[in-house]
Amino acid sequence: MNRNELVSFLDDYLQVSAYPDKSSNGLQVEGKAEVERIAFAVDTTLKTIEGAVKGKADMMIVHHGMIWGGLNYITGIHYKRLKMLIENDLNLYVAHLPLDAHPEVGNNVGLLRLLDLEPKRPFGEYKSLSIGFYGEFEEPQPIEKVAQIIAEKLDTTVRTYEFGKRVIKTVGAISGAGAFALEEAYRKGIDLLITGEFGHADYLTALDLPQSVLVAGHYKTETLGVKALMKLIRERFGLDVFFIDEPTGL
Amino acid sequence: MNRNELVSFLDDYLQVSAYPDKSSNGLQVEGKAEVERIAFAVDTTLKTIEGAVKGKADMMIVHHGMIWGGLNYITGIHYKRLKMLIENDLNLYVAHLPLDAHPEVGNNVGLLRLLDLEPKRPFGEYKSLSIGFYGEFEEPQPIEKVAQIIAEKLDTTVRTYEFGKRVIKTVGAISGAGAFALEEAYRKGIDLLITGEFGHADYLTALDLPQSVLVAGHYKTETLGVKALMKLIRERFGLDVFFIDEPTGL
Amino acid sequence: MNRNELVSFLDDYLQVSAYPDKSSNGLQVEGKAEVERIAFAVDTTLKTIEGAVKGKADMMIVHHGMIWGGLNYITGIHYKRLKMLIENDLNLYVAHLPLDAHPEVGNNVGLLRLLDLEPKRPFGEYKSLSIGFYGEFEEPQPIEKVAQIIAEKLDTTVRTYEFGKRVIKTVGAISGAGAFALEEAYRKGIDLLITGEFGHADYLTALDLPQSVLVAGHYKTETLGVKALMKLIRERFGLDVFFIDEPTGL
Amino acid sequence: MNRNELVSFLDDYLQVSAYPDKSSNGLQVEGKAEVERIAFAVDTTLKTIEGAVKGKADMMIVHHGMIWGGLNYITGIHYKRLKMLIENDLNLYVAHLPLDAHPEVGNNVGLLRLLDLEPKRPFGEYKSLSIGFYGEFEEPQPIEKVAQIIAEKLDTTVRTYEFGKRVIKTVGAISGAGAFALEEAYRKGIDLLITGEFGHADYLTALDLPQSVLVAGHYKTETLGVKALMKLIRERFGLDVFFIDEPTGL
Amino acid sequence: MNRNELVSFLDDYLQVSAYPDKSSNGLQVEGKAEVERIAFAVDTTLKTIEGAVKGKADMMIVHHGMIWGGLNYITGIHYKRLKMLIENDLNLYVAHLPLDAHPEVGNNVGLLRLLDLEPKRPFGEYKSLSIGFYGEFEEPQPIEKVAQIIAEKLDTTVRTYEFGKRVIKTVGAISGAGAFALEEAYRKGIDLLITGEFGHADYLTALDLPQSVLVAGHYKTETLGVKALMKLIRERFGLDVFFIDEPTGL
Amino acid sequence: MNRNELVSFLDDYLQVSAYPDKSSNGLQVEGKAEVERIAFAVDTTLKTIEGAVKGKADMMIVHHGMIWGGLNYITGIHYKRLKMLIENDLNLYVAHLPLDAHPEVGNNVGLLRLLDLEPKRPFGEYKSLSIGFYGEFEEPQPIEKVAQIIAEKLDTTVRTYEFGKRVIKTVGAISGAGAFALEEAYRKGIDLLITGEFGHADYLTALDLPQSVLVAGHYKTETLGVKALMKLIRERFGLDVFFIDEPTGL
Repeated sequence: MNRNELVSFLDDYLQVSAYPDKSSNGLQVEGKAEVERIAFAVDTTLKTIEGAVKGKADMMIVHHGMIWGGLNYITGIHYKRLKMLIENDLNLYVAHLPLDAHPEVGNNVGLLRLLDLEPKRPFGEYKSLSIGFYGEFEEPQPIEKVAQIIAEKLDTTVRTYEFGKRVIKTVGAISGAGAFALEEAYRKGIDLLITGEFGHADYLTALDLPQSVLVAGHYKTETLGVKALMKLIRERFGLDVFFIDEPTGL
Repeated sequence: MNRNELVSFLDDYLQVSAYPDKSSNGLQVEGKAEVERIAFAVDTTLKTIEGAVKGKADMMIVHHGMIWGGLNYITGIHYKRLKMLIENDLNLYVAHLPLDAHPEVGNNVGLLRLLDLEPKRPFGEYKSLSIGFYGEFEEPQPIEKVAQIIAEKLDTTVRTYEFGKRVIKTVGAISGAGAFALEEAYRKGIDLLITGEFGHADYLTALDLPQSVLVAGHYKTETLGVKALMKLIRERFGLDVFFIDEPTGL
Repeated sequence: MNRNELVSFLDDYLQVSAYPDKSSNGLQVEGKAEVERIAFAVDTTLKTIEGAVKGKADMMIVHHGMIWGGLNYITGIHYKRLKMLIENDLNLYVAHLPLDAHPEVGNNVGLLRLLDLEPKRPFGEYKSLSIGFYGEFEEPQPIEKVAQIIAEKLDTTVRTYEFGKRVIKTVGAISGAGAFALEEAYRKGIDLLITGEFGHADYLTALDLPQSVLVAGHYKTETLGVKALMKLIRERFGLDVFFIDEPTGL
Repeated sequence: MNRNELVSFLDDYLQVSAYPDKSSNGLQVEGKAEVERIAFAVDTTLKTIEGAVKGKADMMIVHHGMIWGGLNYITGIHYKRLKMLIENDLNLYVAHLPLDAHPEVGNNVGLLRLLDLEPKRPFGEYKSLSIGFYGEFEEPQPIEKVAQIIAEKLDTTVRTYEFGKRVIKTVGAISGAGAFALEEAYRKGIDLLITGEFGHADYLTALDLPQSVLVAGHYKTETLGVKALMKLIRERFGLDVFFIDEPTGL
Repeated sequence: MNRNELVSFLDDYLQVSAYPDKSSNGLQVEGKAEVERIAFAVDTTLKTIEGAVKGKADMMIVHHGMIWGGLNYITGIHYKRLKMLIENDLNLYVAHLPLDAHPEVGNNVGLLRLLDLEPKRPFGEYKSLSIGFYGEFEEPQPIEKVAQIIAEKLDTTVRTYEFGKRVIKTVGAISGAGAFALEEAYRKGIDLLITGEFGHADYLTALDLPQSVLVAGHYKTETLGVKALMKLIRERFGLDVFFIDEPTGL
Repeated sequence: MNRNELVSFLDDYLQVSAYPDKSSNGLQVEGKAEVERIAFAVDTTLKTIEGAVKGKADMMIVHHGMIWGGLNYITGIHYKRLKMLIENDLNLYVAHLPLDAHPEVGNNVGLLRLLDLEPKRPFGEYKSLSIGFYGEFEEPQPIEKVAQIIAEKLDTTVRTYEFGKRVIKTVGAISGAGAFALEEAYRKGIDLLITGEFGHADYLTALDLPQSVLVAGHYKTETLGVKALMKLIRERFGLDVFFIDEPTGL
């Protein structure tokens, strides 16, 4: 398949132009003009690029690219990653916020669907855009139950911070580092915020609001989007696809 | 002791005016004019304020205050924290970057001294200021040995990411969220970066540099500065002091 | 009445979210959750807060709050005002530009109505929003006549600067410090600008345009909005209300 | 005298390049190349320009010029003023902040000298520069006495706001609109702030600090600098000089 | 004709308020109130102003005015130009980007029409606005043919840089310094970019894209808009008009 | 020779850290660690990179790199250039403003030396740094004579714009696009400005100042610095060096 046609489809489907470009969404690094085999990964590291090369991919589609805010020098890790991409003619396509927020293949609708919840309304305002969603159980669930389901389906351990509600009716989901949405969650009466990463300062905010939080891992919560997109690409275009799993444990 | 005299001493000793004021260093919230008893804590939360009140403190001295970048509304957690401070006439004195960077009582010289290292040179440029230090062992040490000492002395568990060197000669210390210094550490040939908090994106940078990292907890690494300052204040002014330990586990 | 319901009504009725937030419009300082008695005032000073406390108010609604551009330190006058508010559980609700510009209870429609004029069109562009209005007499009036009416109805002395027209057909109103609108007034053929405050630099502009101006006092011109809002709140919700009059003479 | 030589002297003597240029200090509008007769005024208005023309001046030296923050259009009052300047070959030299702050001919040392005070230390930080001074009486004076002297020597009426001290030892002076220095005055223990203009918002700050203030008129307090500079120019260069008095009463 | 009516017509017809105002579009310098005779020119220089004066014009309408980004000082060339304008009561009306982009009288539709092409779609994004157009030949033309037509019709020599296509189907036009549109031209498959000015850095971009370029002179390409507007003004209002030709050869 | 040592020498000698980094001075793209053979060129284009590869260079040292203001996407010409650099392990070292301004090997001292002039004083303020110099003939020279010498020594044709002086005593030099210094040249009494590139807008400024200008080509005027640096590197380190001449004619 022609690379530019695929890029046009992705730009369109993911509404790339609607998002601020600090993360350089879209075709971030050019490679070969024809694409038959695509590697999907959460991150762009030497290991994932190597995985793509070994798998004979023509393109990588990732959530986290290698340019944030513009490259001023192509040295050090930027050089090493770029050298491996370029010497192997690999295209690098990036979908960061567009893949968090997408209503069909996004990380956040993906998190809700692990709990059999449908997204009820957008949630999680980040730079004037809502990148998450929340949903509502028909019957309130104990927080332990929610934690158990997420842990099983993501095949990981999860932590809960039960500062607020312990019986959960509404659930908000923000994959990755979603603690910026703590105050919005509390204000909107969302009983539980599911997110990926949770630091010291976030803890202090959640504690005093108080807001209950379930932390399932930055990496794990962001595998959902790339995997859903992978399925769509395979089905729609009949291309070869594979997922490269390189968890950070964080 | 007169509150204003104590504040003048602290502002001077910690060189508060040399630091950018987004974290509102100095006397952040006014309280009673006479100060005899001071509570020290890492954070300003309802629990630590409550601890100060129960301990009959006249002032809290903390690393993390309650204002970051200016308060536009005094509602929600800001209201609750401020209400408890004001109703108890508690002064709140904040030393954020000044207490990371201080050459005598700072968190980062504190971390090095746990390893019996003297700070050799400033390190860790943050907004044009160096807020950390690095030191050098006379004899290189295995990373496990370093991890064991830190774990014991901070009474916590530590994680190591052995992406670079495993036998350590030079050690850089940046308490709290110090991953911004990963590339500087690698460039300067610092074998091990000790820091408090380490997220998914930091992992990817350290992995590809590659740079070895020891993670000892945001909270734990930032108890050193307030405790050292507490000792100084007691010895110099003969005031009553006590430490409020409210770890976040992060 | 529940405080949050009242705040929602006010935010909505005054279209608070349409205005830039440097003046922190809306519930600026939280207080008790139930509100039965409300004090209205132009300004937030120790005296007006004291007046609200003595009058046993649960909330103050003011034109000028106590936060402008974010509070970095809660010391000095900010501390004193906040302490009195918080220790008395007083809510502070602020409507600055929203109350200048409002088409029903605003200061500026209020000024026009003193002259039995209906607002004809918005006027007075300030940060891309029009915050005043102008109206038109059926019969042109001598400026002395207009001055006399304003002086009587606001119970104050007024000054006129008769640099332009002396017989007035169109009148623009910008309460408080409205001299920013001098050039717009001249360009739009508004015969008289009524405003509250007029400084040396404003005089020079009006003189050379030339533009006639009537100055009725910053304080006096801004009593109209809070009083109109007070009436509305009493009638609509049956709450106890009272006005605290603390003129500055300016 | 050659115009460029005079401009060089003034730029140097007043240290024009040390001040931010929003007020376009220095030779703001070019005119004839030879200068024998100079008009001094506080403001640049059609009347003062006319005064300069009638007095057959070759240059005007003023405190307030006609460009603030860059001219985008030369229409309206800018056109009228500029036309009169240019058609009469009048040079316009402006010294705004440089003439407030100057240690010999500045407005603020001038105000202190009316009270036979010597400037003790710079005061009044405005955009990182101190533009005023304060001085100290040997014997404390009642505020009425100070007011009486200022009123007599400036030949005007003054207002006092006796919110703080009524017996005055230290006096700070900021000509024109000097209320930005209220909090600094209070913090530094300056008993009385003398300034020119004082608005509604300034009143509220002074009231709650509390800080005593003497208001002597924006215009009147800024005649001192241009008159002192006039004397210097006459004595040093033997040029013809005259002062154009166009008070605004503000 | 009344000057203000003409200005209103022009502001409206050229949609002046839709363009960023760094070039101070609209009536840039005021002159006499009645306008019967108008000089048109590309630039505002002493020579073109002199030409307008000799031709007894009441107004100049130009593509390049004399204010860019605000005038801070009226000295040197700004003074000389302004003095000549003001002493001759000449109005100066400026239409910079509005005259590049206009769909009827714009420079860029003008360039396409030299080749008998109709504008097909806007092109040439500059500060979020499209200021050029592109068109399409029914039959592809050799680049030499296109160059010959442009050279003849503009009565000038042109240069071609045949880095890309040599047989031309689509032509984009950006008068003046239009090299900012090189990458957009290449991306949109525009075979030839016609522009006015082309520097060293532009050459390097065109070479490597590769993109063919025809350079016809900054001055020459910008005579089209003012001449078209001149024709419109004469026909619509019956005013006297004349064009002042002062080519720079660039 | 070790690449990092050479880079350290160059960074130091050219004072790279003293210049704003929009042009990413220093090692812009990493390549092989050992450097024995270095290609020098004015620009980074596919042709000059190809020249370096054919010449078996390990590093290119250029005046114009390939990154200006940060790369957001590595596609199009950026991809093509980078691919050729990376696949050939070529280091790219950039010295833009540092090589204009250098007092020994800089382009601008180079231009003066063509005329046997020594730099008298820095000149040409660009973003708060002086990047050029001016010198003075012992005997004034006719402008034609100056033009002839420059033309011969740079082996090119030059244009002169004799708007000001025609007999030249002082000469200022700003290689490349140096017209930003026209007003400074005029103000400082510099009789002739020598520069490389001169556009339509520059012409208008020079014409009205009036200022005489000699234009010798952007490319040609910027060959001097890289050639002087090439000589230094060969002599100091004994490395193989060669120059790639790819003139743009501009």
